Amino acid sequence: MEGKTQVAVVGGGLVGSLFASYLAHHDVNVDLFDLRPDSRLQEHVKGRSINLALSFRGLKALKITGSENILEEIKGIPMRGRMIHNNDGSKNIILYDPVHGQCIYSVGRKRLNDFLLTAAEKHDKVNLHFNHKLRSINIHSGELEFSRTADGDILKTKADVIIGADGAFSTVRKEFLKQPMFNYSQHYIEHAYIELHISSGSDGQFLMDPNYLHIWPRRTFMMIALPNCDASWTVTLFMPVNEFAKLESPDKLMKFFETYFFDAIDLIGKEKLIMDFFASKPSPLISVKCNPYHSGGKVVMIGDAAHAIVPFYGQGMNAGLEDCFILDELLRITDFNTEQAFLQFSKLRCLDGEAVCDLAMYNYVEMRDLVSRRSFIWRKHMDDLLHRLFPSFWIPLYSSVTFSDMRYSKCIANKQEQDRMLNAGLLVVLVLAVSILAAYFFT
Amino acid sequence: MEGKTQVAVVGGGLVGSLFASYLAHHDVNVDLFDLRPDSRLQEHVKGRSINLALSFRGLKALKITGSENILEEIKGIPMRGRMIHNNDGSKNIILYDPVHGQCIYSVGRKRLNDFLLTAAEKHDKVNLHFNHKLRSINIHSGELEFSRTADGDILKTKADVIIGADGAFSTVRKEFLKQPMFNYSQHYIEHAYIELHISSGSDGQFLMDPNYLHIWPRRTFMMIALPNCDASWTVTLFMPVNEFAKLESPDKLMKFFETYFFDAIDLIGKEKLIMDFFASKPSPLISVKCNPYHSGGKVVMIGDAAHAIVPFYGQGMNAGLEDCFILDELLRITDFNTEQAFLQFSKLRCLDGEAVCDLAMYNYVEMRDLVSRRSFIWRKHMDDLLHRLFPSFWIPLYSSVTFSDMRYSKCIANKQEQDRMLNAGLLVVLVLAVSILAAYFFT
Repeated sequence: MEGKTQVAVVGGGLVGSLFASYLAHHDVNVDLFDLRPDSRLQEHVKGRSINLALSFRGLKALKITGSENILEEIKGIPMRGRMIHNNDGSKNIILYDPVHGQCIYSVGRKRLNDFLLTAAEKHDKVNLHFNHKLRSINIHSGELEFSRTADGDILKTKADVIIGADGAFSTVRKEFLKQPMFNYSQHYIEHAYIELHISSGSDGQFLMDPNYLHIWPRRTFMMIALPNCDASWTVTLFMPVNEFAKLESPDKLMKFFETYFFDAIDLIGKEKLIMDFFASKPSPLISVKCNPYHSGGKVVMIGDAAHAIVPFYGQGMNAGLEDCFILDELLRITDFNTEQAFLQFSKLRCLDGEAVCDLAMYNYVEMRDLVSRRSFIWRKHMDDLLHRLFPSFWIPLYSSVTFSDMRYSKCIANKQEQDRMLNAGLLVVLVLAVSILAAYFFT
Repeated sequence: MEGKTQVAVVGGGLVGSLFASYLAHHDVNVDLFDLRPDSRLQEHVKGRSINLALSFRGLKALKITGSENILEEIKGIPMRGRMIHNNDGSKNIILYDPVHGQCIYSVGRKRLNDFLLTAAEKHDKVNLHFNHKLRSINIHSGELEFSRTADGDILKTKADVIIGADGAFSTVRKEFLKQPMFNYSQHYIEHAYIELHISSGSDGQFLMDPNYLHIWPRRTFMMIALPNCDASWTVTLFMPVNEFAKLESPDKLMKFFETYFFDAIDLIGKEKLIMDFFASKPSPLISVKCNPYHSGGKVVMIGDAAHAIVPFYGQGMNAGLEDCFILDELLRITDFNTEQAFLQFSKLRCLDGEAVCDLAMYNYVEMRDLVSRRSFIWRKHMDDLLHRLFPSFWIPLYSSVTFSDMRYSKCIANKQEQDRMLNAGLLVVLVLAVSILAAYFFT
């Protein structure tokens, strides 16, 4: 193995472990370091949301694992649209893609991560190192220092190339912050979240229709539920931090739920609701943008380390997995010239990283507020109609983001163009109407 | 002195040294630490722009020093407006305040800083410690660790209250970045700068009219000159980094100056121009926003540490000095309850810190491009006329920022309101004109 390029991947989450599989197709040796124990040996993994929405970009990137039917293997549950739970108890469905019937898939984070670790490990060139916490990194020399959380030992090592896939609070990125000309922003939104659960029914069945993402939109806050493959649901309540603070007692919590989510009380169960709600503090939501993603040909960041986003478009994981696909393509094109490939990656991807951050922020307004407004429904029908008439010309925003690999920045530009066209169309209709009226009155 | 509140001020620049004077009026002991040697014992101080534009906010804050005529003491040179150097060699003047004749003042950074250090030192309670580089800070316990740059010794100390006034690349702020819920952005603009110089004439006189800020606006780049009290000028060329890179030889530099700044060649002197230009690399320009500025009642950041801005509005120093005034007021009102005062300071000032960042970014476009456009001149005349007619109602943006202590965020809101009014006015005029024309043709 001597003389081969040594690549260190920092972070064995979804993105890091997938990229290890990509790297295995190049002429390199790969060491993947993760601070946690091997999740495959554990029943539960704490932290971070339990399930995620997998869509086109993620699925495309996952093909490298060689799995024939990956959705079956990771037990993805198709969600065809949003099931809106209105405040009066009524429900209505907004399909994601009424034209082609495309779906997104609810998948368990642990199940997918375990699958990706196993896929990476199948390659002889890939070595997994768990319980390794990155202490320091020299992004010029490639030196890395880990502390082994199991025995407290220090591991000093050196890599030719380092992939920073260590998530939203990336240690690799902290080192970038010390470099000149590194643009960076981190923003905590005013809203936080708490996870609740709906168990499976007594007969082991889902208590709600599992083929939808359920939403309780309440303008300034919302609750959502995604199905798990054991017929349970992971429920997430998003709300401003100061609103959470008001729900200081079980009584106030129950009153709040009776007012806004009364149909969910029985589903969750009153006792479990109170227990889960007060078991932990609301988690903050951070959005991170930076530029560039790389340092020379030595280090590059992918996934949440490069662009952590709020969870409202279901694109955080998909964008991260897509990073792997794009970076791999650039490494192929440049014949593993990391200097060139990483530079191109930043040039291409920083723009889209920013765009997906903005999209996710926008979609929170759509999910908690707009979906319950008539103007939104009207626009959705208009979009669907135009998409049906001109399928390759008029692609609605949600479809371009979720069911295509159009650059995120292009998705936004597209939407703005569509808005302008619709406004112009509206103006023409208005002028025509006025003209007809005028002609009618004056003749 | 036992039992008194111990305040550590980190940074002895303009803002830190002024705030030490403010603190001396409270019942506290003050230690001011600066990493540099005492500038008063040195002839030249390297780094950072040599002169600055002092205006209303700064002057108001400086009154605490008790100096009767501070402008005389620091040898401030009044600048009544912008002297525009057009590309054809012609010049024209745009006064800052044709209505009241208010000025801004060109002052030397070193002279002002020396003055402020001496003012602070006059108070027994204030102790200055030079050559102390902050190594680490615990923003919860108040522990500080400095390395003494003179002998390499380490000083460990503890303060009840810490003022972070350590500039755009603040070490105090780095510690804030590790805390949850801290919003932060740092942005390097595409433009960088190089400082050049125009000496005094052979008879010791200014070679240009010293009562103006001279500007060579060239749309995508610009050069400016501010007078120094020894009759020399500090000239700054601002330009995109990649444009600087093109000027790789003295020949190319001279051709560039002959094309765009030919009247400045003789003033600077060809040899000195080439020498100064190639003596150092262009310096980057960073813009920093963050929120909050404080941590409990223990630490608060002021000046560039809290809001580093690009230099195009001449407000960086003024905003920093104004921080001192505002924070002092809050400390008085709360009877030195730092928990309350710092919280209020963040609530009030973060918004204005963001606003002044945005204003400075906007003014770069105004200075290098808009000032040479007719529409700008027209709007300026309109603003001046309306200001003359309604002096307390219609305050032009530049005046509210530079000649008043209106909150920066209010200055922006004001300008937007004025834009809307002017646009509405324009529409009314247009409708009237069309009506009159229609009446003329149809009768």
